[in-house]
Amino acid sequence: MVEILSVATGRQGLFEFTAQLAELVTRSGVEEGLCSLLVQHTSASLTIQENADPSAKDDLENWMNRLVPEGDALYTHVYEGADDMPAHIKSALTSSSLSIPVLNGKLCLGVWQGVYCWEHRHEGRRRNIAVHINQ
Amino acid sequence: MVEILSVATGRQGLFEFTAQLAELVTRSGVEEGLCSLLVQHTSASLTIQENADPSAKDDLENWMNRLVPEGDALYTHVYEGADDMPAHIKSALTSSSLSIPVLNGKLCLGVWQGVYCWEHRHEGRRRNIAVHINQ
Amino acid sequence: MVEILSVATGRQGLFEFTAQLAELVTRSGVEEGLCSLLVQHTSASLTIQENADPSAKDDLENWMNRLVPEGDALYTHVYEGADDMPAHIKSALTSSSLSIPVLNGKLCLGVWQGVYCWEHRHEGRRRNIAVHINQ
Repeated sequence: MVEILSVATGRQGLFEFTAQLAELVTRSGVEEGLCSLLVQHTSASLTIQENADPSAKDDLENWMNRLVPEGDALYTHVYEGADDMPAHIKSALTSSSLSIPVLNGKLCLGVWQGVYCWEHRHEGRRRNIAVHINQ
Repeated sequence: MVEILSVATGRQGLFEFTAQLAELVTRSGVEEGLCSLLVQHTSASLTIQENADPSAKDDLENWMNRLVPEGDALYTHVYEGADDMPAHIKSALTSSSLSIPVLNGKLCLGVWQGVYCWEHRHEGRRRNIAVHINQ
Repeated sequence: MVEILSVATGRQGLFEFTAQLAELVTRSGVEEGLCSLLVQHTSASLTIQENADPSAKDDLENWMNRLVPEGDALYTHVYEGADDMPAHIKSALTSSSLSIPVLNGKLCLGVWQGVYCWEHRHEGRRRNIAVHINQ
């Protein structure tokens, strides 16, 4: 089955949607299979990160903003805003798609893993994530 | 079904093959499923990027070449040429595989998304991409 | 089928497990299909790299350690050790999941490609990798 999940991102940063995804897996009825995701945007990413301590997410976001700052003189693609080209670069450095095995009807994640949509633009919007689940 | 796509890359940079891939999806006859890709080289990557404005691709390429320059004194793996070790690093920082859901017989990409083979070496060559499509 | 592979990593660096994975593909009996992997940790990654010359792996590791050093004043997430936050960042910059087509009963890798678990922490441990294989 293929469904489009919609994840609200209010600002730059990591937004967890593990629960939304887990609900979809349950609804699919798949006991043993694969759950594959694609974010349908080039200025946001998918990442699996620690779901325990928010400071890890904050450090990750700050580190990435330092590596890929706005206003770099190298950029020529600037008409969509100062955060646009950094967003494309961050998207290339992280992941657009993920594949997560399903076992016993559940996402086969590690104990501390959460699934996140990483918003790279400042403005809030909804991000569409195409999800395929099969056996 | 599994098929090997061949993408011609004439130089460093991003080479779109969305149309080639879409044709394969049509030929597979799969209406709802998953299209998974693996580039069979460690000096090229797969990436999904904006297909509208070429300046985004140029900036991405230039930014990456600044982050991972040739001639870095750190490299010991140099006998295959000055662009070889940077190519391996760029490959590690980006993606070797991608998974794209298929819906209504088409790749379930966002409006502005294209699928690219990212060539990290200077010389032109053909890059093989293994593609799996199933339901 | 879904199975959990266990890969021993004795220290920071890339640990190849292509043979372990190939054995699983053989055991699955799948002739044409897809092998998808997820590392169940946020301080280790999966990567496909050159399996010929160890110097490429060493350079990759040294380059990444220079890009993401320990002791960066930016980090606030430090109570799990100096190598913890760099591990999360390296995990975000590389890949948590991979998809490899299977053809003629074998992983459809390029001639020089090996599949690696990239350990980002200093201490040795076992890393669990969830593997899904289907047609």
